[in-house]
Amino acid sequence: MLDVTPTPLQRLLRERRRGYSLPAPFYLSPEIFEADMEVIFGRHWIYVGVEPDVPEAGDVMVVDIGKTSVAIVRDDDNEIRAFHNVCRHRGARLVHDEKSTVGNLVCRYHSWTYDLTGNLIHAEHMGPDFKKGCHGLKPVHVRSLEGLLFICLAEEAPADFEEMAARLGPYIAPHNVRETKVAFQKDIIEPGNWKLTMENNRECYHCGANHPELTVPLFAYGFGFAPEEMDEHDRVNAERYGCLLKTRHTEWEAEGLPSKEIDELDTMVTAFRTERLPLDGDGESHTIDTKAACKKLLGNLTNAKLGGLSVWTQPNSWHHFLGDHIVTFSVLPLDAERSLLRTKWLVHKDAVEGVDYDLANLISVWEATNDQDSELVGICQQGARSPAYEPGPYSPNTEMLVEKFCNWYVGRMTAHLGR
Amino acid sequence: MLDVTPTPLQRLLRERRRGYSLPAPFYLSPEIFEADMEVIFGRHWIYVGVEPDVPEAGDVMVVDIGKTSVAIVRDDDNEIRAFHNVCRHRGARLVHDEKSTVGNLVCRYHSWTYDLTGNLIHAEHMGPDFKKGCHGLKPVHVRSLEGLLFICLAEEAPADFEEMAARLGPYIAPHNVRETKVAFQKDIIEPGNWKLTMENNRECYHCGANHPELTVPLFAYGFGFAPEEMDEHDRVNAERYGCLLKTRHTEWEAEGLPSKEIDELDTMVTAFRTERLPLDGDGESHTIDTKAACKKLLGNLTNAKLGGLSVWTQPNSWHHFLGDHIVTFSVLPLDAERSLLRTKWLVHKDAVEGVDYDLANLISVWEATNDQDSELVGICQQGARSPAYEPGPYSPNTEMLVEKFCNWYVGRMTAHLGR
Amino acid sequence: MLDVTPTPLQRLLRERRRGYSLPAPFYLSPEIFEADMEVIFGRHWIYVGVEPDVPEAGDVMVVDIGKTSVAIVRDDDNEIRAFHNVCRHRGARLVHDEKSTVGNLVCRYHSWTYDLTGNLIHAEHMGPDFKKGCHGLKPVHVRSLEGLLFICLAEEAPADFEEMAARLGPYIAPHNVRETKVAFQKDIIEPGNWKLTMENNRECYHCGANHPELTVPLFAYGFGFAPEEMDEHDRVNAERYGCLLKTRHTEWEAEGLPSKEIDELDTMVTAFRTERLPLDGDGESHTIDTKAACKKLLGNLTNAKLGGLSVWTQPNSWHHFLGDHIVTFSVLPLDAERSLLRTKWLVHKDAVEGVDYDLANLISVWEATNDQDSELVGICQQGARSPAYEPGPYSPNTEMLVEKFCNWYVGRMTAHLGR
Repeated sequence: MLDVTPTPLQRLLRERRRGYSLPAPFYLSPEIFEADMEVIFGRHWIYVGVEPDVPEAGDVMVVDIGKTSVAIVRDDDNEIRAFHNVCRHRGARLVHDEKSTVGNLVCRYHSWTYDLTGNLIHAEHMGPDFKKGCHGLKPVHVRSLEGLLFICLAEEAPADFEEMAARLGPYIAPHNVRETKVAFQKDIIEPGNWKLTMENNRECYHCGANHPELTVPLFAYGFGFAPEEMDEHDRVNAERYGCLLKTRHTEWEAEGLPSKEIDELDTMVTAFRTERLPLDGDGESHTIDTKAACKKLLGNLTNAKLGGLSVWTQPNSWHHFLGDHIVTFSVLPLDAERSLLRTKWLVHKDAVEGVDYDLANLISVWEATNDQDSELVGICQQGARSPAYEPGPYSPNTEMLVEKFCNWYVGRMTAHLGR
Repeated sequence: MLDVTPTPLQRLLRERRRGYSLPAPFYLSPEIFEADMEVIFGRHWIYVGVEPDVPEAGDVMVVDIGKTSVAIVRDDDNEIRAFHNVCRHRGARLVHDEKSTVGNLVCRYHSWTYDLTGNLIHAEHMGPDFKKGCHGLKPVHVRSLEGLLFICLAEEAPADFEEMAARLGPYIAPHNVRETKVAFQKDIIEPGNWKLTMENNRECYHCGANHPELTVPLFAYGFGFAPEEMDEHDRVNAERYGCLLKTRHTEWEAEGLPSKEIDELDTMVTAFRTERLPLDGDGESHTIDTKAACKKLLGNLTNAKLGGLSVWTQPNSWHHFLGDHIVTFSVLPLDAERSLLRTKWLVHKDAVEGVDYDLANLISVWEATNDQDSELVGICQQGARSPAYEPGPYSPNTEMLVEKFCNWYVGRMTAHLGR
Repeated sequence: MLDVTPTPLQRLLRERRRGYSLPAPFYLSPEIFEADMEVIFGRHWIYVGVEPDVPEAGDVMVVDIGKTSVAIVRDDDNEIRAFHNVCRHRGARLVHDEKSTVGNLVCRYHSWTYDLTGNLIHAEHMGPDFKKGCHGLKPVHVRSLEGLLFICLAEEAPADFEEMAARLGPYIAPHNVRETKVAFQKDIIEPGNWKLTMENNRECYHCGANHPELTVPLFAYGFGFAPEEMDEHDRVNAERYGCLLKTRHTEWEAEGLPSKEIDELDTMVTAFRTERLPLDGDGESHTIDTKAACKKLLGNLTNAKLGGLSVWTQPNSWHHFLGDHIVTFSVLPLDAERSLLRTKWLVHKDAVEGVDYDLANLISVWEATNDQDSELVGICQQGARSPAYEPGPYSPNTEMLVEKFCNWYVGRMTAHLGR
């Protein structure tokens, strides 16, 4: 047999060339995928949804992170809890639908029954020696950041979630996630490794050639550029954009809306970035006409011209908070070559479809953009399969955040696996 | 790379905790599945069908056990034989349909021809040095237990088949399998490891909550219960059921129908259990109205109120012999996470559909029950995939036969693999 | 765990029994499939199509050999070039359709642009330190044998392509491939290992029982036979066929058409065989009525009664050059158990469908034959999966070329892997 000993993951991590895309095994190898699931998705805070997914006591949402199924429950005291979705008797999956409302959590196999805090309260025929107290549901860490729900599968979760919450919270709070509802959710399966989905999200170098809808509200000069390649006309426009950004930040912050960039994408364990960006045209929303898609603004906002507050978290989310709605994305790896992209569009909970907003208009920009990105992820996955693939150079002007994603990934893997 | 050395199977077997469900790798690992196929399905007697599947000389039935395809043939002397379904020339599969009738077994590739005893009788162009006598079909052990067909793929088959046949034979004989016909066969693919299918069959703790049809003829008290959990009303009913069981056994044995329990489910290599159980309502059959589904009773039986003779064999079958029909089940593993459940409904060979029996009525209880069980197997398979799964406790009152199945499995694996 | 150490490939190669089909792992093992792709398809000349697939400057054809995607391009100087179909930036697949026409090769992800000689001529935002010259497309060896295109993925390609070209060229040249067009192409996925597809092609022992269409133009006696099994009638006919073959060869060679057998199927690295064979009936073509399917003959040919020039190359092609059309086949492995068979029917480039030829008539014999062969490959793959499979003997009279295929395969694998 040929020598098929896999290159050790540690060596691949150690040898990764800065400023270049990752070696192919990071996109292809089932073994590295397992390591990703164990280290990245098993020991970090993973964004999975929003409080409005489980608005009332007894509401349950199931999220699968790799092979781990988690039930997120709002208990009778209105507290959000998360449990492993596995019965402690014969191991049956407990909750089957993505969303449901229950009184207790009852296993359909032999009717073992757990209350909403996870205690086993009923199990027939088990005899006098059986201890109910030892057979409650296994808990999972869950935290809400102003309504954004993060879970961590590890026994001990990274402590710097608090720091992220403290710094990001004031940016997000004015959009009042808790007072929204999910107007629409769409799951698509992208034909590529989850890291290609993330890398694609972390640059807009590809936007001009691929996203005709998204580039209506988004300013081209916000994507980065090579100054030395610019002609006079470009230079003037880029300068104008720079001024606009500064002006708007000052205005918005005066209105009580924190707007300036924070970038901790490769400097924290629970890593994130945020910035409020002005939009083109009417400057109100991620819509084809750049106007608010929903008449009812979020929270106590009265001005729709707030641009878009963008938030990115490692390893698996990004979010756009507009004045009138929120679009929030989570990436859930399925296997080495397929990833689920889950997108939720949130509007004010009192907004009425057909009256306050037209659903097709609300979702049109990002529904189209997601499909375009999915194809791009697919052609990168195809390319990575070729033995001729080799890591290529990132643009220092337009792909800095891709590089930060890779740096964070390599750093976190190395921290857990050793060198 | 993380340490992915699989826990050795021997250690998993050695460490299995009595009274608890098996560790997850037994339901998931492709390597353990291969070991199961080699040890359990490769070296034990496997139930595959009935003599009425090949009623006439020249009739052939193909059964696949894992990757091994076997042709079961009734030869010209009316003897049942089994052969590996592989041509000895270029290795083509020889017989393609599940059921067929042939004069000889002819390979469609180059027309090599074998008679029904497996001898190569024709092979063109092979030249003068070719020895036909060395290229006959490879035989497989096959035995009939009162019409139930068992095969063994090993060179040497377990010798205690004779003991099972001697002890089970008198129970089954009155139902005269050889004089039946297959009224209906249904194959379903259950989304779980074959052991989950077997475990599910070995208890009725789940019946009350899941099998509304089956629990019409079956007595709830026959499924086991925890005496200390019973109230006065329950206790009276359970006692009544105990008396009924004793009375019926005495009556039936007086009529020449052996009825009392034999349980060798974890005490023999060729392991089995049997008992004739009274039925509820009219007490005649596994039907929705508890009456015989077929007017023509089996064999020489004249009384339909015989309850149901149940037979279980390790590793892969169960059977219910009623006065009017037989339902017989075989489990054929497909891969670590999928299993074929094959069910055949047998009636007297002279019974006429539409006259003596209504097919929909005949099959309705078990067709529904199988579909319900398949879902239950599926949710256990889903649960076992979670890293949070851990073996849970069996009820000492209602899951004793599941424990015996696991004990037999662990014992047989250990006997072949060593400790 | 059972001992699952795979038998080393070298040992399997060393122990292969001459005159017998290969051991099962050669048809089943994903590891051996990977070795096949690396050694056989990675280091030998692979037939992939014809010059008329890319008739004009800017025409591109994509061919996938295992995981390696190759773009075959006709550049602006009319030269045929081949490149790895992977962008040097982020590794995206560059060309997506099997056939297209382009000015330059532009990656749709970030618009990196390569000219038709593979040079990177445009890459935005990459900054002043970026070297375009180091990021051109990676070239692949490509050669044309009188219009038949072969590529080699290795850095250094086998040198004896020249010898094959020199010896085969004169046989093929009169059919003038370059002046044809692809009238029809059909891809089918055969459910078997690529070696089973090749073995099936290398004998006609199976033709009589399986190919009612193909055996109309093909002479049965051309397939080989066991002389000692023949009766007087057979002997007379076989002798007659031998005379016909000799006569025709003399006639055709006098007309300037080399016709006599050359067989280097297991004696060269770039191995091949050819022979011009008389046809039955009207003797013109591989058609149901044995007449030319296209009125316009190939090249400068004026006589349609030329039989069929057959060409076989290792590891993956065969071709039939008739007076009026060409049928050309390439086998492209997909995985251990599936192979793509690509068939192209070529006619004179000026022939007009519906006027000079009827497409259904042109393709009918080989379309039917391919489907029949695909089923035969499938039943061999099924048989090889059985643990009961063992290598069987080849007929010394009818399966000599199968044996040569296996010898070449074993020889080439051994040459690269050592003993």
